Amino acid sequence: MAQVNPTVGDLDGNCRTIADYARRAHDAGAHLAVFPELAVTGYPVEDLALRNSFVSASVKAVAALAERLADDGLGELPVAVGYLSRRAGVGERYGQPAGAPQNAFALLYRGRVEVTSAKHHLPNYGVFDEFRHFVPGETLPVVRIHGADVAFAVCEDLWQGGGPVAAARRARAGLLVTVNASPYERDKDNVRLELCQRRAREIGAVVGYVNMSGGQDELIFDGDSLIVDAEGELFARAPKFEEDLFVTDLALPDARERAGEDPTSEDRGESVDGVRVVRHTLSAEPVAAYAPEPPVLTPRADPASDVGEVYRALVVGVRDYARKNGFGSAAVALSGGIDSAVTTTVAVDALGADRVHALLLPSKYSSEHSLTDAEDLAKRQGISARTVAIAPIVAAFEESMALDGLAAENLQARVRGTLLMGLSNQEGHLVLAPGNKSELATGYSTLYGDSVGGFAPIKDCWKSLVWELARWRNAQAERAGAPAPIPENSISKAPSAELRPGQVDTDSLPDYDLLDGLLDAYIGTDKGMRELTTAGYDPELVQRVIRMVDRAEYKRRQYPPGPKISSRNFGRDRRLPITNRWTPTA
Amino acid sequence: MAQVNPTVGDLDGNCRTIADYARRAHDAGAHLAVFPELAVTGYPVEDLALRNSFVSASVKAVAALAERLADDGLGELPVAVGYLSRRAGVGERYGQPAGAPQNAFALLYRGRVEVTSAKHHLPNYGVFDEFRHFVPGETLPVVRIHGADVAFAVCEDLWQGGGPVAAARRARAGLLVTVNASPYERDKDNVRLELCQRRAREIGAVVGYVNMSGGQDELIFDGDSLIVDAEGELFARAPKFEEDLFVTDLALPDARERAGEDPTSEDRGESVDGVRVVRHTLSAEPVAAYAPEPPVLTPRADPASDVGEVYRALVVGVRDYARKNGFGSAAVALSGGIDSAVTTTVAVDALGADRVHALLLPSKYSSEHSLTDAEDLAKRQGISARTVAIAPIVAAFEESMALDGLAAENLQARVRGTLLMGLSNQEGHLVLAPGNKSELATGYSTLYGDSVGGFAPIKDCWKSLVWELARWRNAQAERAGAPAPIPENSISKAPSAELRPGQVDTDSLPDYDLLDGLLDAYIGTDKGMRELTTAGYDPELVQRVIRMVDRAEYKRRQYPPGPKISSRNFGRDRRLPITNRWTPTA
Repeated sequence: MAQVNPTVGDLDGNCRTIADYARRAHDAGAHLAVFPELAVTGYPVEDLALRNSFVSASVKAVAALAERLADDGLGELPVAVGYLSRRAGVGERYGQPAGAPQNAFALLYRGRVEVTSAKHHLPNYGVFDEFRHFVPGETLPVVRIHGADVAFAVCEDLWQGGGPVAAARRARAGLLVTVNASPYERDKDNVRLELCQRRAREIGAVVGYVNMSGGQDELIFDGDSLIVDAEGELFARAPKFEEDLFVTDLALPDARERAGEDPTSEDRGESVDGVRVVRHTLSAEPVAAYAPEPPVLTPRADPASDVGEVYRALVVGVRDYARKNGFGSAAVALSGGIDSAVTTTVAVDALGADRVHALLLPSKYSSEHSLTDAEDLAKRQGISARTVAIAPIVAAFEESMALDGLAAENLQARVRGTLLMGLSNQEGHLVLAPGNKSELATGYSTLYGDSVGGFAPIKDCWKSLVWELARWRNAQAERAGAPAPIPENSISKAPSAELRPGQVDTDSLPDYDLLDGLLDAYIGTDKGMRELTTAGYDPELVQRVIRMVDRAEYKRRQYPPGPKISSRNFGRDRRLPITNRWTPTA
Repeated sequence: MAQVNPTVGDLDGNCRTIADYARRAHDAGAHLAVFPELAVTGYPVEDLALRNSFVSASVKAVAALAERLADDGLGELPVAVGYLSRRAGVGERYGQPAGAPQNAFALLYRGRVEVTSAKHHLPNYGVFDEFRHFVPGETLPVVRIHGADVAFAVCEDLWQGGGPVAAARRARAGLLVTVNASPYERDKDNVRLELCQRRAREIGAVVGYVNMSGGQDELIFDGDSLIVDAEGELFARAPKFEEDLFVTDLALPDARERAGEDPTSEDRGESVDGVRVVRHTLSAEPVAAYAPEPPVLTPRADPASDVGEVYRALVVGVRDYARKNGFGSAAVALSGGIDSAVTTTVAVDALGADRVHALLLPSKYSSEHSLTDAEDLAKRQGISARTVAIAPIVAAFEESMALDGLAAENLQARVRGTLLMGLSNQEGHLVLAPGNKSELATGYSTLYGDSVGGFAPIKDCWKSLVWELARWRNAQAERAGAPAPIPENSISKAPSAELRPGQVDTDSLPDYDLLDGLLDAYIGTDKGMRELTTAGYDPELVQRVIRMVDRAEYKRRQYPPGPKISSRNFGRDRRLPITNRWTPTA
């Protein structure tokens, strides 16, 4: 199982990676190599799926890959990959995705694309839009490989009860392999493990789950590929977040022993519940017995630390967004506050201290500690830091246009944003926006001010989680005997935008502990007004906060992308109307 | 038929509008009043559909509306409305929209919600995401009203061949009424008319089509409600874009005369093709014969002018976006160029000259005519115009940070953006961004510079269409004997961003005639590399332009919303990955 990290659209690069890993699998003696969903194209392809020439390029790439593997002497190794294909023989149909694209599966063998199928269950919730992009597959391939019957399905097909899962059971497969592109979510790995365990017991077969790794735009794939045996016991597991290959030995039932059983509807080629089993034979004879490798069970880095895992996800997100978009470096405006401190620290861990450039942009309202805390952080982490006082620029604006109140406050944030974008354009850095999820939820930010940037590393982290991340990262440094990267003062002081004298966040927002609890109940678990007040929140506060969230959609729509760490983010997985006059009253 | 203009979330206001129009329909002697899809909640509701408390509010609102109509003495008038509901008796199911919401239909009668059903075919392409938001309905109500059998369906149900349309035929309905929220697209009105004509002939029934009117965020509903008779002849038609009520008389077959026919599967309550006919009787006796009103056929304003229709759509878009979001005025940066000239003119037509505020922001690279053309336009249209030279502010930035090349060019655009946002924050105007679709497609704009704003009126108009709109608007003024609102020089001069000496757009882009043709073939009709080169475009140019389009997604994601006038816009109806390494080669 190879949990590779493809790049969307880089068909050549992705196929090169697959060939490299197939070579390593072959050299380790593997009888089957498995790669993730859409490994050939990268995931998600979005509306590229509707572009005929892109689908054709994917179909050609997978055929060329099969030949290349054979040319490389790997033809006898069956290689399972996800790719983008199309359903043949369907004309244009009103409401059907143009060109009938499919989220497809191919088994490559002896220089040919030997077996193909496509994802049957298409997810269309959260970050997934697959009804828009794909038409469903209607077959479950069951392939005899060295005498064992191996069924192959794609991602969502494992999550839904009917269809492919039921067909695999009725077809009496000895192994069900699913290829996946399943994004990271806090606590999701146990959900996946439990799902595989349940399915293994239902089907009575070993279940192998190979997932993508790495960051792609807003999605972070956490790898964590695993195998559970037919009793549902965890048998093998790959590390999280990293590209990895693991090779392990499975004892699978000899399919010939099932020959005497009654033929099922599957054996007669009938479609049940929209899925038809199609059998193939690559090699009917089992391999001779040999001493198995021990199961691979990569130890969890720090299984107790949910916060540490979030931190890793953010680092992977920044690393891959920069790399895949051709940025070698990042720029951040360092304010001395907690958000920019954590954003910068993540960037340094992702890219290295020599590739992170800080701007310190004090105004006349900046407190003494803002500058000293920012300088302290830059020194601790060894990053370049330049200081530009914004007062002369703000004064030049104010000479041209009289601004006061909120307009004057926002002006300062926009001067900072313009300086940061100037540095980025001049030197080629990826600008990182420091906004957190509490800010995004409530609209507590300045459009084109602190919100500028190409990527927003902590946009899916509540403010309280940002503090936890800072503490976790400092503690981790301490455990390693290194100095804390984040100044204690940045963690402990009261948060403030410092856009007017003496301003603190609690002037406009409730205390973050209260606010984040309420926001998480409202957005994270979709509780309504009544449930929230029953849970003890003040009705007036609930109404005020819901209003803030609903009215800030116009700002969120223009916010840079950022890594998702929860199933209830903003963006496609929670898209509100911009105009919305509704205020819940009960 | 009342083609009202609801506001998303304003349940009280929308129900008040419905009650007002129902009163007018009643007073005009109507026997049935019909309102659009989701008229109670507004359309689109986006992820509000997944919010339990919002669905409950909609269900309550429609019940209260029924009572209110009866209290107002309108209880005997059956009122058909679209609203948001939920399917009862379905538990949570993996992958199913939370709470099983439905895009529902209700017939209100004698103080009660007498009949309900829900949209069966859910569109999930272009701007529609309905698999994400709704579960499909499974019934077609056929209601006997004054002795005629009237079937009711929702929007997409008319576009798809099977399901409700076929059920209406088999149920031998005399009239099929569909309630719609169908957005404007260039040339779509004939498509709708032809669809209604085809369906009327298929079903052998009169078809009534009521559509929403007005702008809601990015969607512009163009009204254009219509009725075709059972032979497919256009019988009645409402005006475009405006709220309107029309009352007309139909001679419908007496359902009792069909009593002797053989019972069909529908009559036995069986489900065919996923749809079950449910019959209701409000009033079995036909009304006594009376002299019918003549058919209503609103003459098209200017049926030959496609460009004029686009212009009206933009005006409605700006008017309703401002109104529904609580803005009484707009601000624009007037450069003397064609884009800001058309943007401003649309704003003046939408809001009135006294509510549009122009900023003239010349730099040291601005040519003489930039300022004079901008001043000329402001004078012609009588709008307030303030001039702020940006040089001192640009100088203040450059004293603090050395910028050259593209970084220095972008700085000027960002200083302008910051001034415009400052004015907006200070005085409360909606900022309009002047970007056109050619710019958005190729990324020829400055993030946080000319792209700032709350709404972008011409973002779905190719540059060549922007010129056509200007010429059309001037010609329209001429026809009315008024002076041309747009200076001829703004139309005829070579377009330039004026961010460096002597710069013109063609330094970076092909000629717009060529570019727009290519972009429209690529984006508008999804032609691939091969088709484009076969059509005569230079392969190198095609590759360069496709690359520009694909690489500019990060900018488009942060662009303000704007009215859609085509089915191939950017945004949800064409969403590319941000990271995309694919370049077509053949």
